[in-house]
Amino acid sequence: MNNILEKIVRGTTDIISTEELKKKLASGKKLRIKLGVDPTAPDLHLGHSIIINKLKIFQDLGHQVVFLIGDFTAKIGDPSGRSEIRPVMTDEQIKVNIKTYTGQVFKILEKEKTEVVYNSKWFNKIGIEGLLNLASRSTVAQMLVRDDFAKRYKEDKPISIIEFLYPLLQAYDSVALNADVELGGNDQKFNLLLGRQIQKDYGIKDTQIVITMPILEGTDGIKKMSKSYNNYIALNDSPTDMFGKIMSISDTLMYRYYELLTQKNLSIIKTMHPKDAKTKLASEIVERYHDKNKAIKAKEEFNEIFSEKNIPIDMEEYQMQEIEMRLSDLLVKSGMVSSKNKARRLIEQGGIKIDSQKLLEDSIVNCKKRFTLQIGRRKFKRIVPT
Amino acid sequence: MNNILEKIVRGTTDIISTEELKKKLASGKKLRIKLGVDPTAPDLHLGHSIIINKLKIFQDLGHQVVFLIGDFTAKIGDPSGRSEIRPVMTDEQIKVNIKTYTGQVFKILEKEKTEVVYNSKWFNKIGIEGLLNLASRSTVAQMLVRDDFAKRYKEDKPISIIEFLYPLLQAYDSVALNADVELGGNDQKFNLLLGRQIQKDYGIKDTQIVITMPILEGTDGIKKMSKSYNNYIALNDSPTDMFGKIMSISDTLMYRYYELLTQKNLSIIKTMHPKDAKTKLASEIVERYHDKNKAIKAKEEFNEIFSEKNIPIDMEEYQMQEIEMRLSDLLVKSGMVSSKNKARRLIEQGGIKIDSQKLLEDSIVNCKKRFTLQIGRRKFKRIVPT
Repeated sequence: MNNILEKIVRGTTDIISTEELKKKLASGKKLRIKLGVDPTAPDLHLGHSIIINKLKIFQDLGHQVVFLIGDFTAKIGDPSGRSEIRPVMTDEQIKVNIKTYTGQVFKILEKEKTEVVYNSKWFNKIGIEGLLNLASRSTVAQMLVRDDFAKRYKEDKPISIIEFLYPLLQAYDSVALNADVELGGNDQKFNLLLGRQIQKDYGIKDTQIVITMPILEGTDGIKKMSKSYNNYIALNDSPTDMFGKIMSISDTLMYRYYELLTQKNLSIIKTMHPKDAKTKLASEIVERYHDKNKAIKAKEEFNEIFSEKNIPIDMEEYQMQEIEMRLSDLLVKSGMVSSKNKARRLIEQGGIKIDSQKLLEDSIVNCKKRFTLQIGRRKFKRIVPT
Repeated sequence: MNNILEKIVRGTTDIISTEELKKKLASGKKLRIKLGVDPTAPDLHLGHSIIINKLKIFQDLGHQVVFLIGDFTAKIGDPSGRSEIRPVMTDEQIKVNIKTYTGQVFKILEKEKTEVVYNSKWFNKIGIEGLLNLASRSTVAQMLVRDDFAKRYKEDKPISIIEFLYPLLQAYDSVALNADVELGGNDQKFNLLLGRQIQKDYGIKDTQIVITMPILEGTDGIKKMSKSYNNYIALNDSPTDMFGKIMSISDTLMYRYYELLTQKNLSIIKTMHPKDAKTKLASEIVERYHDKNKAIKAKEEFNEIFSEKNIPIDMEEYQMQEIEMRLSDLLVKSGMVSSKNKARRLIEQGGIKIDSQKLLEDSIVNCKKRFTLQIGRRKFKRIVPT
């Protein structure tokens, strides 16, 4: 029991409440574990995987994982465009997104053991009376406590009234699903707790346990992992990219990734040489989202490029805003060469490589992805899109 | 045209805007004049009549008066009981209330020229998407500007989210009705203006004119006329009660009633002796809600009691909280007699009258209505329930 609890608690931000969770776990009942997702975000990354890993733990313990797809709200959106809610989606778009989404999620969870439910199932039937009834269950003051609402209200930024209804709809999902546990990011704490309250309002005595997970930092170790910050490791990244990105993170961040992304014993990991620990982490992650052979191959490839070809793992980075640039301009702009003439000469002499490939012409370079720019045998810079 | 405008403007608090109203009136179009009412309040009084009189002016000018019955919202109420919205009503109750209501309204308006519409007609069809769409048309900040919401929010009193939706539903009624003008009490100004805004949001270019009317003071001249303050003159009051209540108001209040309840020229009225003016007002009001003969009879009856029997019109009032009381106790409590023994003696001697009727037994007196308590020929007190 303590072992089970430890697995569940590891890496979480909040559990409300641990006592209730213990009771539910001890009851022997097959618990219903909810994760609500928008039918958007087709490109999942390791940041998302933290929550899905936690679901996997429940699944391995024999509990019922329920994926709640918020297709209903996605079809509504905010017609006035005043709120920051995502735009309205068509049924077709939603279907495509969900397929992309589950395709990635089932790299972690077992498909046949996972229940996928759409909230249009009950919201198409709840009716306007049902919605108004739901609206009566919360107060304006309660909503204005939520951090983002409080901030916007204070700053005189408009909050559309529909935005006060969405958290209630999300909370009602927990009623319809009879959820025992709901997981979410730390930023979802308010909404998840509202689910508990609304369950009680609708006569559910044994209300859901709320488990929130921290937001994972991206490969830069500073900002949260996000596609828009270009500091993410996607579940769909190639083995080479995945391996390389993990090898590029700092040692501190590596231990955090260990804690949040694996079930490894941290005290043992900390006895290893950091470079070995990092290689082990990279191999484990690639193996998880691809397979053992690909992990081995990625490791070999990485060693070949970075170790055998004497490319250092840690190198200076240059943040690139442009999406493409002529090679000679890039060499000057990144500060590796002092003039365009010098740059052109170096290119002609075969002294410039991109990701270990020699470039003999002053061509246009695609700068939308990270790559290593190299002069001769010893001068390196990593070009990173911003 | 100026004459028409003058009639419409008389006694109003706000017209938004007079320019637009002039344009609409000049267009020659048959305007749709909306009054929204809850299917409650079966006992209409002169306070309500101010608005209905204004509708009558539009009706007499050939415009279409539309009575919008909020049956939909009445059926929803606030299930949580957190807000101050009226309780849920059944279809049967609503039907009965509306019958009572229109029975009174059609003492002023012409029934066959009045359109009666129920908002369940569109709200039963709008659907949850429609409602959410509507909810997106206003912001939290806008709602919190409304006086009562602002006050409650400031005082940490809960405002249920359903209460933010009701003004929007009411505003949407104006869309569904294609209203040209909406009338309401001064306290409805916010909601009526929201109707204008929502009409615009839904593509109505020529949005409704908002006309608000003041709240009429009750017979005490201080508090607003209301059943709960017992200072009201009901449209269903008997000719005698109606006549007597009007005769009991102050001269100042009489001129206000003239302005708001009649179309009489005030400068002419002010040349009359106040008592004559009051009698004229009482006669006009009784004639309006009953008929000429009953008005004449009420006047005669009044004169008989108060003039011929030497009962003064103005007399001291005693505010009575109890709903019934033994006569001897009442005489002591109201301060007309110094002891119960003295009171009993006076009763036995036939010295006590209630509304000019001699009482010979120390019986229980019903104190739920106003009456005149009299000792001998000269000592009077009016007992008024609080």
